Amino acid sequence: MAPTHDTRHKMREICRIAARVFYEKGYDGASMQDIAEAVGLTKAGLYHHVGSKDRLLFEIMNYGMDILDETVLQKVKDIADPREKLRQTIRGHIDLITRARDQEITVILHENRSLKGALRKKINARKKQYIDFLESLIGQVQQESGKAATSPRLAAFALLGMVNWLYQWFDPEGPIGQEALTDAFVNFFFRGLLGKT
Amino acid sequence: MAPTHDTRHKMREICRIAARVFYEKGYDGASMQDIAEAVGLTKAGLYHHVGSKDRLLFEIMNYGMDILDETVLQKVKDIADPREKLRQTIRGHIDLITRARDQEITVILHENRSLKGALRKKINARKKQYIDFLESLIGQVQQESGKAATSPRLAAFALLGMVNWLYQWFDPEGPIGQEALTDAFVNFFFRGLLGKT
Repeated sequence: MAPTHDTRHKMREICRIAARVFYEKGYDGASMQDIAEAVGLTKAGLYHHVGSKDRLLFEIMNYGMDILDETVLQKVKDIADPREKLRQTIRGHIDLITRARDQEITVILHENRSLKGALRKKINARKKQYIDFLESLIGQVQQESGKAATSPRLAAFALLGMVNWLYQWFDPEGPIGQEALTDAFVNFFFRGLLGKT
Repeated sequence: MAPTHDTRHKMREICRIAARVFYEKGYDGASMQDIAEAVGLTKAGLYHHVGSKDRLLFEIMNYGMDILDETVLQKVKDIADPREKLRQTIRGHIDLITRARDQEITVILHENRSLKGALRKKINARKKQYIDFLESLIGQVQQESGKAATSPRLAAFALLGMVNWLYQWFDPEGPIGQEALTDAFVNFFFRGLLGKT
């Protein structure tokens, strides 16, 4: 049975709250009881929704990848010009990482040591899909400009590092505004990729 | 009393082993008993050496910053040319992140949510010192070249992201060699900073 809108909505609410609990107490330090209390469910009710603690962690990570799809990739999919498409992808990804609402989810997405076996493989496959998308887009930008100073794959990982590391230091209330940050990083990346642009 | 060579050596051994246990089980999931067993001490013996679990985490992070000092910063301190000094700093930092021996320590260094209060402040002050060093060096490189397209602070954070993110994806046994990676990242960073070089 496909999930209805309501069950999907409920699952996302559980994911957001559970992500905050995992973020605060660590995956091993947080009990299913802690999470049930935070969500406002009985422990049995929580298990009914998520199956197991492993599965809950997987659902949170999967939700993180859904957000990336919905808020970044869907918005650029109709842009034909590779350079503009890459620029908008970077802007969207920075916006996703720096906005407070989903921060716990994006952080947990990268702490995937706790996820094992088949569930880990599924998340890694979704991450790989995004890296492949970036690599291919970077390759198109290089081809169009006739410059290929860096392998597209290494450039994709350099970009992911710059952007995903933001959660470690960027403070939306701090002295560097998000617009200034985004412009600086987009320009830095394109110079790194193509030389003077 | 200043620590003798022997007690310092012992503490570093404890830090390396404890870092592996924290890495595998999470800070909250690992007990002092787990760590004592891994180190080959009684629980009382471990407490004698490290004081508390908090303090042990602090010692591991402090050791991580010591390694950065010893293996990266000490080696570049006598280089006068800013560009060469920055280049060697990047090479050294990449080498530190990609070598397997201390990987657990460098990963834990960035999971500082578990550290609280004064100990957290001490580690953050050491991290800030390194960021200030990078920022100042980047500023000198820009000044010398007459190009200042990116704020040195944002460039420093872009660099830290590129390099520190390596632990998420770089496999020393994989298809991309460490030399090729290092050259590509150094060149990418200098192009991003200065445009075509």
